[in-house]
Amino acid sequence: MSVAGVKALTFDTFGTVVDWRSSVIEDFRAFGKKQGLKVDWEALVDEWKTAYRPGMDAVRSGKQPWTTVDRIYRAKLDEVLAEYGLDELAEEEKVHLNRVWHRLNPWSDAVAGLTRLKRKYIISPLSNGDVSCLVNMAKHGGLPWDVILCAEIFRHYKPDPEVYLGAIACLGLRPHEVMMVAAHNYDLRAARTHGMKTGFVARPTEYGPGQKTNLKAEEDWDVIAGDFGELAAKLGA
Amino acid sequence: MSVAGVKALTFDTFGTVVDWRSSVIEDFRAFGKKQGLKVDWEALVDEWKTAYRPGMDAVRSGKQPWTTVDRIYRAKLDEVLAEYGLDELAEEEKVHLNRVWHRLNPWSDAVAGLTRLKRKYIISPLSNGDVSCLVNMAKHGGLPWDVILCAEIFRHYKPDPEVYLGAIACLGLRPHEVMMVAAHNYDLRAARTHGMKTGFVARPTEYGPGQKTNLKAEEDWDVIAGDFGELAAKLGA
Repeated sequence: MSVAGVKALTFDTFGTVVDWRSSVIEDFRAFGKKQGLKVDWEALVDEWKTAYRPGMDAVRSGKQPWTTVDRIYRAKLDEVLAEYGLDELAEEEKVHLNRVWHRLNPWSDAVAGLTRLKRKYIISPLSNGDVSCLVNMAKHGGLPWDVILCAEIFRHYKPDPEVYLGAIACLGLRPHEVMMVAAHNYDLRAARTHGMKTGFVARPTEYGPGQKTNLKAEEDWDVIAGDFGELAAKLGA
Repeated sequence: MSVAGVKALTFDTFGTVVDWRSSVIEDFRAFGKKQGLKVDWEALVDEWKTAYRPGMDAVRSGKQPWTTVDRIYRAKLDEVLAEYGLDELAEEEKVHLNRVWHRLNPWSDAVAGLTRLKRKYIISPLSNGDVSCLVNMAKHGGLPWDVILCAEIFRHYKPDPEVYLGAIACLGLRPHEVMMVAAHNYDLRAARTHGMKTGFVARPTEYGPGQKTNLKAEEDWDVIAGDFGELAAKLGA
């Protein structure tokens, strides 16, 4: 079996481990209800999220110096709140809304799967999220990480090589002893380039019912699974 | 209570959480027995350990570029093995011996105390040990860290300011919301300089029965405890 030497699993987090879209919409809807606001929260959230990739790519290309994801999101949040007539919210409320990424809920199979996998492997996120976001999210959702590796530690965003190579080095392992697990083919393509093993877990509703990308594995990844239970079974955990 | 705002605890690890000296001596003694070697393991280990602080200080002063603790120890291990007539050991055996720092045992009160503290606080090492060492040690000893912060992440060894300031920033907290916990007064002095809260836990046999330093708190640290159970109690966990 080609994954026999794997000792550690690194997980993409947003979309792969946690269901960010439903979590953010649900959280904002509850906030709106409490405040008596009438807003199309789905549309607001989807627009907010569009800032993520360009914000990171501006750092990757050198157009922007290192900027945390919290700050990327906060800048865009201020824009969309203004657009939706919500710019009068108190600063404290804006901080609360922006921290929604710290309280995302795991997919229903994630905690049980990770708990199984942790018995046999070192498990870590390898996410573009900030350390504090990943720590608080783990506390919130019960994610049993052994260690938290992410972009902020390496001052580079995925798919920059520094993130994958940095994780392998920090774990003190060889590339083929680490498996990148993600619901996104681009992430696995980058990981494979550096000699890592690859595991694809399908999350076909990450972006909602109309999702058109990453519906399935686009290459012969080392493991392909429908959820973390199947992933654990295929990895002998 | 002056520690009311604390949200995260960062722990010195070697000596504070794990009993490195007894663990290394016991491990080497077992190795020696299996190999039929007659060696004064206590003396060998005590000499080996003398390389730790100078190795890190050479990095801190700029005399050496960034060097992991694993490499600092390996260089000195080769020296002491030669001195004790053990340089004929196989490379695989030397690697095994050098990795003893990855399989240190916690003090008997550490796991229960950390488990209590984890319910109320974010808990992390803030150690000069390497990431892989701390991860493997946590797996070995059952240390329930939420996140692993250490010198390797910040490319600086304690007591360099970058380590304490880096941890505070990664946790997304203000200095007084983070408490440094250590059995070493120098570490708490540095942490206090940066506005962190401080917790002293006495480990009067860390260096064996003849220990002469750090037998007690040398300043009015915010919490002073005899073990992690007392620390948890004083922190309301």
